Amino acid sequence: MTQNKASETEISSIGEFGLIDRLTKDFPLRNTESKKGVGDDAAILNFGGEDVLVTTDMLLEGIHFDLRYVPLKHLGYKSAVVNFSDIYAMNGTPKQITVGIGASSRFTVEHLEEIYAGIRLACEIYGVDMVGGDTCASRSGLVISVTCIGTAKAEDVVCRDGAKPTDLICVSGDLGAAYMGLQLLERENAVAAGHGPDFQPDFAGREYILERQLKPEARRDIVEALRAEGIKPTAMMDVSDGLSSELLHICKQSDTGCRVFEDRIPIDYQTACMAEEFNMNLVTAAMNGGEDYELLFTVPLTDKDKIEKIKGVRMIGYVTQPELGCALVGRDGSEIPVKAQGWNAF
Amino acid sequence: MTQNKASETEISSIGEFGLIDRLTKDFPLRNTESKKGVGDDAAILNFGGEDVLVTTDMLLEGIHFDLRYVPLKHLGYKSAVVNFSDIYAMNGTPKQITVGIGASSRFTVEHLEEIYAGIRLACEIYGVDMVGGDTCASRSGLVISVTCIGTAKAEDVVCRDGAKPTDLICVSGDLGAAYMGLQLLERENAVAAGHGPDFQPDFAGREYILERQLKPEARRDIVEALRAEGIKPTAMMDVSDGLSSELLHICKQSDTGCRVFEDRIPIDYQTACMAEEFNMNLVTAAMNGGEDYELLFTVPLTDKDKIEKIKGVRMIGYVTQPELGCALVGRDGSEIPVKAQGWNAF
Repeated sequence: MTQNKASETEISSIGEFGLIDRLTKDFPLRNTESKKGVGDDAAILNFGGEDVLVTTDMLLEGIHFDLRYVPLKHLGYKSAVVNFSDIYAMNGTPKQITVGIGASSRFTVEHLEEIYAGIRLACEIYGVDMVGGDTCASRSGLVISVTCIGTAKAEDVVCRDGAKPTDLICVSGDLGAAYMGLQLLERENAVAAGHGPDFQPDFAGREYILERQLKPEARRDIVEALRAEGIKPTAMMDVSDGLSSELLHICKQSDTGCRVFEDRIPIDYQTACMAEEFNMNLVTAAMNGGEDYELLFTVPLTDKDKIEKIKGVRMIGYVTQPELGCALVGRDGSEIPVKAQGWNAF
Repeated sequence: MTQNKASETEISSIGEFGLIDRLTKDFPLRNTESKKGVGDDAAILNFGGEDVLVTTDMLLEGIHFDLRYVPLKHLGYKSAVVNFSDIYAMNGTPKQITVGIGASSRFTVEHLEEIYAGIRLACEIYGVDMVGGDTCASRSGLVISVTCIGTAKAEDVVCRDGAKPTDLICVSGDLGAAYMGLQLLERENAVAAGHGPDFQPDFAGREYILERQLKPEARRDIVEALRAEGIKPTAMMDVSDGLSSELLHICKQSDTGCRVFEDRIPIDYQTACMAEEFNMNLVTAAMNGGEDYELLFTVPLTDKDKIEKIKGVRMIGYVTQPELGCALVGRDGSEIPVKAQGWNAF
């Protein structure tokens, strides 16, 4: 590999999304079996008349997880579930995964069995088959790459680009908890480092935010509830990078703007307590925290009554004409532009 | 993560294949769309009546490649092609790939563009669509994970378990060249380390073995030639870990033995020269070198005349009853048991 030249571009200067745009342009789709490539939660393929969804996610030690406080079984579970979440976000059903694992010599067979126990549990709960993979040595740390394949009827698939002005913006569950769980784990880990090996962190009353960070679930229940009510969202994606970032994705791809109301953003009690304890802005945490794996979606205004019947879904705003841009409406009616802080580890 | 206990098992003690067996047992196939899981070059799924093949491979810096002598564009090309090879080895056609890349901050945007240029070239040549992926930061070095999806008519798919006694064992191209190319690159790299930056390694007359290591091709041509001759192999796989290892896979899964003749193993002139220069046993290199990405397959004896018509395919032996075991027959008629040295980087 040649040395970096002064004229070369650091990845951090263009960010993750800029990088993806640059790397994935000029990849034409040649095969009739490829309906949609890069740019949504999953690619859309078609085999024998059936839509097949494919998504892949890589988890790297030291970037996506810290084994000082993440149990290996939870890590395996999470690495599978975050991929299922991408398939549900297309309104599909996850069917198979392949798992690639690279592990350095500090990992034993039993360690890897723990990871696979988590993957197995996730597969059982979500009815997914583990059909293949690759296992290899790594020079440094643990690498997990999961690819998930799902199915959907062609007419059911929901992309990010179908939101229309006046559509309602909805989100499932609550936001910011996984981020607060991470803050708590990092703090307790730092405290533990200053104590002896018998130190026990006190997580009483914080179980929910820890679980949101360590063992997230994919919202199959919401996809099923929407189907039961006869609702097909106009646009949908999962909240992995943070609500701000995802709102901008949907609005950019749908060529719309949006208004989201601060006091409508669903936040759990434990998340709010932790934000106060950490002296952090609660709305910022909920908008930009990421790793919530909730579903963000838009529905026509005419579906309002049906949406109200679904437990665990909150209407947080509406879609506008593109000229109005994307803004968060404060409790006093003031408007703050939505910006993608997202999640940039480069 | 807990510390290793004395009772825990080092991965190196059970090897790659032992590890895969332990990790992937107890994964039932629940969905009707999953026909075959772990254990072949690719998993076999079925959507809308069409067989869909899925394979995944991970390439890690310091394990699978050394960037001191592997150009990034070649690396991208190879990372795609080795996956295509797995699909051809099932007698299928690769259609789509997803690409996961983790890169540390020493990589620039231009470096990653080089990798993608190689992936793009491979996709162009083999008619494959790049449909998605994941790009993220890495704490240490470069990680590339590629998943490839292919198609085949259900009646065309060839697995590893169909070989029958008296079948002919065939291999395409020649063996051991990629391994010798790696030896040459490592030697020249060590020599270069003792010289100034202007040192130029002399690769004249070694271009073939270098190309076999740095820019392997998948044998689409052989799959097409077999089809044109109306031959469906009874078993097939690609030679990635080495001929010995692959022969044992086919014989174990087919419940057979085999006899392979030393003087029938195809070896290129440059490979032989390098083996002499390095004072290495040529047959050992050809049997255990790996990374050849040739096709190893078995056909009924009645296809002998047809096979002889296909350029670049050599009959190297025959399948036997399982009691006879797997053996290499030397030039003097002596039999040496085939052992899987394979490729064990743990």
